Amino acid sequence: MSQPVLLSETERFLHEQIPLSKTMGVRIESFDGHELVVTAPLEPNHNHLGTAFGGSLAAIATLAGYSLLWLLLDDRSCHIVIRESSISYRHPVDGPIRAFSRSPEPAAFGRFRARFEKSGKSRITLRSTIEQGGVACVVFEGVFVALRG
Amino acid sequence: MSQPVLLSETERFLHEQIPLSKTMGVRIESFDGHELVVTAPLEPNHNHLGTAFGGSLAAIATLAGYSLLWLLLDDRSCHIVIRESSISYRHPVDGPIRAFSRSPEPAAFGRFRARFEKSGKSRITLRSTIEQGGVACVVFEGVFVALRG
Repeated sequence: MSQPVLLSETERFLHEQIPLSKTMGVRIESFDGHELVVTAPLEPNHNHLGTAFGGSLAAIATLAGYSLLWLLLDDRSCHIVIRESSISYRHPVDGPIRAFSRSPEPAAFGRFRARFEKSGKSRITLRSTIEQGGVACVVFEGVFVALRG
Repeated sequence: MSQPVLLSETERFLHEQIPLSKTMGVRIESFDGHELVVTAPLEPNHNHLGTAFGGSLAAIATLAGYSLLWLLLDDRSCHIVIRESSISYRHPVDGPIRAFSRSPEPAAFGRFRARFEKSGKSRITLRSTIEQGGVACVVFEGVFVALRG
């Protein structure tokens, strides 16, 4: 499948299966095989200060990690869920929201995939940042679990 | 202000100022001076497995902590923001979402309020759980900061 089709299919899956992602205007912008970029406009996600609502930022960072693992694993028979996460809100985001989720080290991903193939269940830690003007405004770390469906 | 009016005012503030809270169907159900209950229906917050989306759960837990601090502080001149949080998704939530945010120990809240009154800025850690059938499905801890507006 071509990259643009793959990304638009992933985005459509999110919008259909997780309706809040559509309300939030979440888009899968790009994926170069290593880094996934997920965006959303500020308008439906603002808070009482006119900056991005922390709950929206947590949701977008979660979706970025989830989508990255979905694309990396490339196994339509699996389910992915989040087990735990932590997030640090370092600076307010007052414009379009852009989340960057980066692939884990190849060795860590290899161990994750081997466990998944052997037992049908495996977990991995993924990191995302939400950046504006080259500054990491939000730093997110999540533990995701893949389960054979 | 009577309790029901206070809760409906807080809910209206959330819906007006944080539009995603309205889309999510967030309601401020009760507050007994110690425990705040925030709810949302599953339907607009479901994921690809028909259970509650982790991003929605994080957003609702964040709103529960935020609203609790707003009600406890009772100072319309302040702004409240979230600085960091961690969340553990222990069991899926497959029905109405109910978040319980409990007041900190009186001594901790007293120190928080004294710092706020002295310097116009203070932080406190608040805990929330999302429960179903008496089981804590989600455990959330957030560091919130109050700032003189």
